[in-house]
Amino acid sequence: MSVLVVGTVALDTITTPFAKARDILGGSATYSSVSARFFSPVNLVAVVGEDFPKKYISLFKNKGIDIEGLKIKKGKTFRWEGEYGADLADPKTISTQLNVLASFDIEIPQAYKNCKYIFLANIDPRLQEKVLMQISKPKLVACDTMNYWIENKLKHLLKILKKVDVFLLNSLEAKQLTQCRNLIKAGKKIINFGPEVVIIKKGEHGVLLFAKNNFFAAPAFLLESVFDPTGAGDTFAGGFMGYLARCKTYNRNNLRKAVIHGGIMATFAVEDFSLRRLNSVTIRDINKRIKEYKDLTRILK
Amino acid sequence: MSVLVVGTVALDTITTPFAKARDILGGSATYSSVSARFFSPVNLVAVVGEDFPKKYISLFKNKGIDIEGLKIKKGKTFRWEGEYGADLADPKTISTQLNVLASFDIEIPQAYKNCKYIFLANIDPRLQEKVLMQISKPKLVACDTMNYWIENKLKHLLKILKKVDVFLLNSLEAKQLTQCRNLIKAGKKIINFGPEVVIIKKGEHGVLLFAKNNFFAAPAFLLESVFDPTGAGDTFAGGFMGYLARCKTYNRNNLRKAVIHGGIMATFAVEDFSLRRLNSVTIRDINKRIKEYKDLTRILK
Repeated sequence: MSVLVVGTVALDTITTPFAKARDILGGSATYSSVSARFFSPVNLVAVVGEDFPKKYISLFKNKGIDIEGLKIKKGKTFRWEGEYGADLADPKTISTQLNVLASFDIEIPQAYKNCKYIFLANIDPRLQEKVLMQISKPKLVACDTMNYWIENKLKHLLKILKKVDVFLLNSLEAKQLTQCRNLIKAGKKIINFGPEVVIIKKGEHGVLLFAKNNFFAAPAFLLESVFDPTGAGDTFAGGFMGYLARCKTYNRNNLRKAVIHGGIMATFAVEDFSLRRLNSVTIRDINKRIKEYKDLTRILK
Repeated sequence: MSVLVVGTVALDTITTPFAKARDILGGSATYSSVSARFFSPVNLVAVVGEDFPKKYISLFKNKGIDIEGLKIKKGKTFRWEGEYGADLADPKTISTQLNVLASFDIEIPQAYKNCKYIFLANIDPRLQEKVLMQISKPKLVACDTMNYWIENKLKHLLKILKKVDVFLLNSLEAKQLTQCRNLIKAGKKIINFGPEVVIIKKGEHGVLLFAKNNFFAAPAFLLESVFDPTGAGDTFAGGFMGYLARCKTYNRNNLRKAVIHGGIMATFAVEDFSLRRLNSVTIRDINKRIKEYKDLTRILK
């Protein structure tokens, strides 16, 4: 089954303790669509400006991502500049230039409207809502967000949460959204906001999944070197949705396996800037890491 | 098999965001011996002063802990006062009164000298070394420590690490000891200091175990309310050692199961001050939580 991914395609300028890169391919829809594509066909909906490098368009095409929904608008591409401290935790935003994103009015191509798996990657919750209004009978809708929307568009975010099945956010965002320091309390509280499943991404500490009568805790894969954490959460979400769309049935165990696959995809994303590492990843690499992960976590009776 | 536990027995004064308690039973040997006792016989070696409340002596006795090695010396019992912030992270030490601990010269009772499972709970590494000099042919020696010894007795700590099989420490201590921000790098580095197995305790984020060709990551049990984190690490270590001593064989899988049992024991410790919750825990409570933990982490094929 195809996954419809809606979000941002951006040009990022990123400084880590190790290096700096300018105008590299980024954005929530970028990471998540490339990640999902390892498991399922992907239809991408996003907007870029006329300055968007052709090589990046080719990259999506070469990955087999359907880009009928990638609009090229007059103006400049959305840009984000961020800087990571030595702990590689939450980056400091140096600048955000919305550019073409400022006036983006999402239009879902006719051919995408029957998509059953919808991933609303991090973008203005009002745009996320507009997507859902154009989709008929989705099977599973997942949604991500960021601190900015919690701070500035909380009303719209809470509105969209009533319409999605799975909500993904990181631990800082979960604490911010609920005003709870304890993540278990936070997860349970968010369930009451509407989504059937809440996934809290804890980075190096793994993932917590909350659902009615289904709590799941997964440690992270052991990664010795993180080069650039940008896009880890989007890559996780993309892998998660792509894996679920590939599964024939949506059940508790496949949900857990999707979490593991999402987590493994994220480990590749953070090994280099932008999509540099993800680009060269093979299914074989993924399966090898999944196997290592099983060894890392398995307990026999 | 019996576990020999050597460490501190203390009177703690603790302030959490929820409450304050004065002169309550604490200390590394206290938590770890009570925890280990759920799985194996325990021989306790520690020192207290003449002011040590008789009811606490009775508590050890009632738990079936052998206290031939608990010396009552002239003077006052070791006291620690600490305060936790709203995040319940690393406590601020308000005061430390060594009292009888200052001149404690460990003497292992004859009846303990053939103990096969030795747990050197958090105490001066010079005392930990003195214990090992009095023990003949132990099967497994585990050792814990704290930031104070890393800062002030590093040479002695590194010396004892060459003589132990399992070294337990928390994530802050692991970073401090290795000057590595990445815990995987830190764990691998500590392996090179001597111990065959290194266990890094991450509190609410679970545990990492490092050994040659055996890495293990375990998420924590989901605990909605933490009342007082004091003794969580000691309780973990006690459960870990008690469980291992009960196992007929020491192998990779039992090591992993011991980590899980240690982790579950710690969840009880933090639910109230001192031993108040641990005191009322039954084997049935433990098994129930172990079962819940399995549900929380299990993935079917």
